[in-house]
Amino acid sequence: MKLLDIYAKLKKDIHYIEKELERSIDVDHPMLREASLHLLKAGGKRIRPVFVLLGAKFGTYDLERVKHVAVPLELIHMASLVHDDVIDDADTRRGQLTVRSKWDNRIAMYTGDYIFAKALSIVTRLPDPSIHQIMSKALVQMSIGEMEQIRFFFNSGQTIRDYLLRIKRKTALLLAISCQLGAIAVGAPAEVSRRLYSFGYNAGMAFQIRDDLLDICGTEKEIGKPPGSDIKQGNITIPVLFALQNPHLRPRLLSELSFIQAADGQTDVIAFIDIIRRSEGIARAEELASKYIDKAIAALEPLPDIQAKKDLISIARFIGNRSY
Amino acid sequence: MKLLDIYAKLKKDIHYIEKELERSIDVDHPMLREASLHLLKAGGKRIRPVFVLLGAKFGTYDLERVKHVAVPLELIHMASLVHDDVIDDADTRRGQLTVRSKWDNRIAMYTGDYIFAKALSIVTRLPDPSIHQIMSKALVQMSIGEMEQIRFFFNSGQTIRDYLLRIKRKTALLLAISCQLGAIAVGAPAEVSRRLYSFGYNAGMAFQIRDDLLDICGTEKEIGKPPGSDIKQGNITIPVLFALQNPHLRPRLLSELSFIQAADGQTDVIAFIDIIRRSEGIARAEELASKYIDKAIAALEPLPDIQAKKDLISIARFIGNRSY
Repeated sequence: MKLLDIYAKLKKDIHYIEKELERSIDVDHPMLREASLHLLKAGGKRIRPVFVLLGAKFGTYDLERVKHVAVPLELIHMASLVHDDVIDDADTRRGQLTVRSKWDNRIAMYTGDYIFAKALSIVTRLPDPSIHQIMSKALVQMSIGEMEQIRFFFNSGQTIRDYLLRIKRKTALLLAISCQLGAIAVGAPAEVSRRLYSFGYNAGMAFQIRDDLLDICGTEKEIGKPPGSDIKQGNITIPVLFALQNPHLRPRLLSELSFIQAADGQTDVIAFIDIIRRSEGIARAEELASKYIDKAIAALEPLPDIQAKKDLISIARFIGNRSY
Repeated sequence: MKLLDIYAKLKKDIHYIEKELERSIDVDHPMLREASLHLLKAGGKRIRPVFVLLGAKFGTYDLERVKHVAVPLELIHMASLVHDDVIDDADTRRGQLTVRSKWDNRIAMYTGDYIFAKALSIVTRLPDPSIHQIMSKALVQMSIGEMEQIRFFFNSGQTIRDYLLRIKRKTALLLAISCQLGAIAVGAPAEVSRRLYSFGYNAGMAFQIRDDLLDICGTEKEIGKPPGSDIKQGNITIPVLFALQNPHLRPRLLSELSFIQAADGQTDVIAFIDIIRRSEGIARAEELASKYIDKAIAALEPLPDIQAKKDLISIARFIGNRSY
């Protein structure tokens, strides 16, 4: 099953959210509107709004309420991408020029600030302070996660736990609260929103591990940029951490890492990537991703067998099988 | 009367807010904590928390409620300063190294993001969605204001209205909602919080005009940096706009502006500053600031004659008389 097939059932509502996203950044400032629209049009899987919509199916579904959560969550994701691109000096994303490369770093920083602020002002239209609390707390964790990433650049002494906490903050948390807030926005019982949170968290962890695997095992065509961009930046991901645990590979990997770091990432990383590809790091990371997918699906088990539940399970399976 | 004399009566409460500010950024991340503390310790007039406290005196004053507004408003101000420093390539602020110069631009960007998020997560502890709405809307306007500033760099065709709208977003709005939210947080009547908003808005406009005058008329010792840093950045302020209206000065000023712009601000601006200093732009800007101060004081007129009212008036007069 393809992601698009799952989305097909939600097509009308996703289309509506897409229009609302456009409306949300319709600001009376040419550069800001252009930069924000550029970002929006670059697309993406819109997985956060989809999780919100599916989460809301477990309560009294009401798109007019739910949009006040779905739109901000996608906006927060977008804003964090613009700021990431500034940090990473990224010139393209999904094959499109980034805001920082099309305009400049200042515009990118303020476009991100604007979109963050806009997201929060939309969610406050729902008069439920607990929703505001959950969202702002997640933002705090996300920003700590970004700093953690910088702190651990090229740090080969980091633990698996450091990595997992980092991807929780960077990716899993926002997906977890997407499912959760969809349910809360329509008054679903606390136990339901708790289970949806757990689904989103575990699916999110698997998603990021799969993404990190893709950067090592994918072809340039599949990932839209040459493989190894993580390690060029200094971002040590889980297949690498697993490979470093192998005493036969470790010395060679550490020496390659020092070389890449000394070159500030401006070097060929084929040799490094090749060692990881041949190592057990790949299979072990795949196995970990599968465990997270199993946990995500298990979290939904006691929930009513509605179509949304089947769709969430299909998305989880899709994440678990992302090819590279 | 000095600002410190006014603050003296609030000393205990300001001290408490200061401690809460420190607690608020006590994050378990060494670099983030250090950068945030560095920023906090750099000080500042804490005028936003003071406005919150004084605004709250018009209702049933409760420091435990009020701190959930006073701390976030100062944090938002701090976060916007860190992002400003990234944009301005500023190495020092108030005689201290900036976060971006002590660490780097990425740390500064994420420190700002973290402090913004933290501010919002603190204010959501008050279960009053209207407070969340007011704050997030102000954030949207502030971020548009920052972009406006960039858009109008070296733009001599801008109007007085462009300038006023920009300083409203950049400065006056946050001061306005400081007074307003102090009152709302303790349940003061709507008419009271509306008048306090008006006070803060008008005092804020005067404050920024005075600040812009200081950058032209102050000595390096008074302003902690050489005069003319606004124009070096391309920031055309109101004394300049008034001077540009004088047909005898305009050609010379435009030619100086082109020269400064061509040099990307990396040039001596003494000649430019000198023309402005001798122009009627100074007196006209002073007069405008005085009008805003009068309006600020008039807004308070119907409010009960409590000590807080006297203190706000003293602060407004202090702003109106800021020496340079």
